[in-house]
Amino acid sequence: MIADSKRGDIGSTNNGYVQSVFGNLQADAITVHPYLGAEALKPFLDNPDIGVIVLCRTSNEGAREIQDLLVDDVPLYQVIARKVAEEWNENGNCALVVGATYPEELRLVRTIAPGLPILIPGIGAQGGDLEKTVRSGIDERGSGIIISASRAIMYASSGEDFAEAAGRCAQDMHSAIMKAAVR
Amino acid sequence: MIADSKRGDIGSTNNGYVQSVFGNLQADAITVHPYLGAEALKPFLDNPDIGVIVLCRTSNEGAREIQDLLVDDVPLYQVIARKVAEEWNENGNCALVVGATYPEELRLVRTIAPGLPILIPGIGAQGGDLEKTVRSGIDERGSGIIISASRAIMYASSGEDFAEAAGRCAQDMHSAIMKAAVR
Repeated sequence: MIADSKRGDIGSTNNGYVQSVFGNLQADAITVHPYLGAEALKPFLDNPDIGVIVLCRTSNEGAREIQDLLVDDVPLYQVIARKVAEEWNENGNCALVVGATYPEELRLVRTIAPGLPILIPGIGAQGGDLEKTVRSGIDERGSGIIISASRAIMYASSGEDFAEAAGRCAQDMHSAIMKAAVR
Repeated sequence: MIADSKRGDIGSTNNGYVQSVFGNLQADAITVHPYLGAEALKPFLDNPDIGVIVLCRTSNEGAREIQDLLVDDVPLYQVIARKVAEEWNENGNCALVVGATYPEELRLVRTIAPGLPILIPGIGAQGGDLEKTVRSGIDERGSGIIISASRAIMYASSGEDFAEAAGRCAQDMHSAIMKAAVR
């Protein structure tokens, strides 16, 4: 279970989040903001049993305002991707968040971080293109992506058939992902 | 009441945080991450009754890893400070977070954002220098800072006099702040 709670505080408070999210809620991984740096994220990073999924390129329309700021001619989101891949992943427990709404950025992140899993929101309600997303995001083994859709599945029907409709929608999406991955 | 919850998600989820933090918890202000940009923060920014306190230079030891990255020779935290002061503050409801552990950075942020309130954690348990902090952070009117101490006050005593000890510690800190401000 991934807690997409986008946490990111100083170390002592992150210790509390480790307790609440992994102790109480029994999650397997958490999404975190990179802004406070690796030192603040140590309570997550130091625990090999905790998946640490760092926000890199978020799915929202205004993501580029901060994430495309150029640091020595490199957009900030790519600097974050490289840091996570080459410095923060000492325990092999890191991953990145890149929105399906930015397939070209997704492709670039995959080249910077060939070995990291990528969590990809933005399919469905946010309008990301599934096929393009899969082909931009998969690694050399044709794997390494976790595609997430929430509203498109949860709200597939507002009638009494909501459960069946959600199930069908999830299954359709799964088939489409598998199809795109083997092309 | 300030909810120092460091939130920052896409707009639809931030709408939920507005409900939980300001509807249910009845807070007056919230701390937020800048990484997703102003568009994602609209649910907070668009409401003049909500105080939006943007993380700028955090108090933790490793803050510089991301926050000092140079964007056209300007450290990222200063880019954020300028954006909040000049673009995000349309409704006059913005403020910044700068840690007491970085008095020189605090002074620079004050010059970039002369009119914004600054929330300053890091006094007490984190070791920030109170007098230096006050003199670096106050605005032209000798005001404009909110100094926060949590652990130093909460854990002032572990004996049965914990309430009196906390009260004394808070009062001492208040006196020291007022003294430094009028110097």
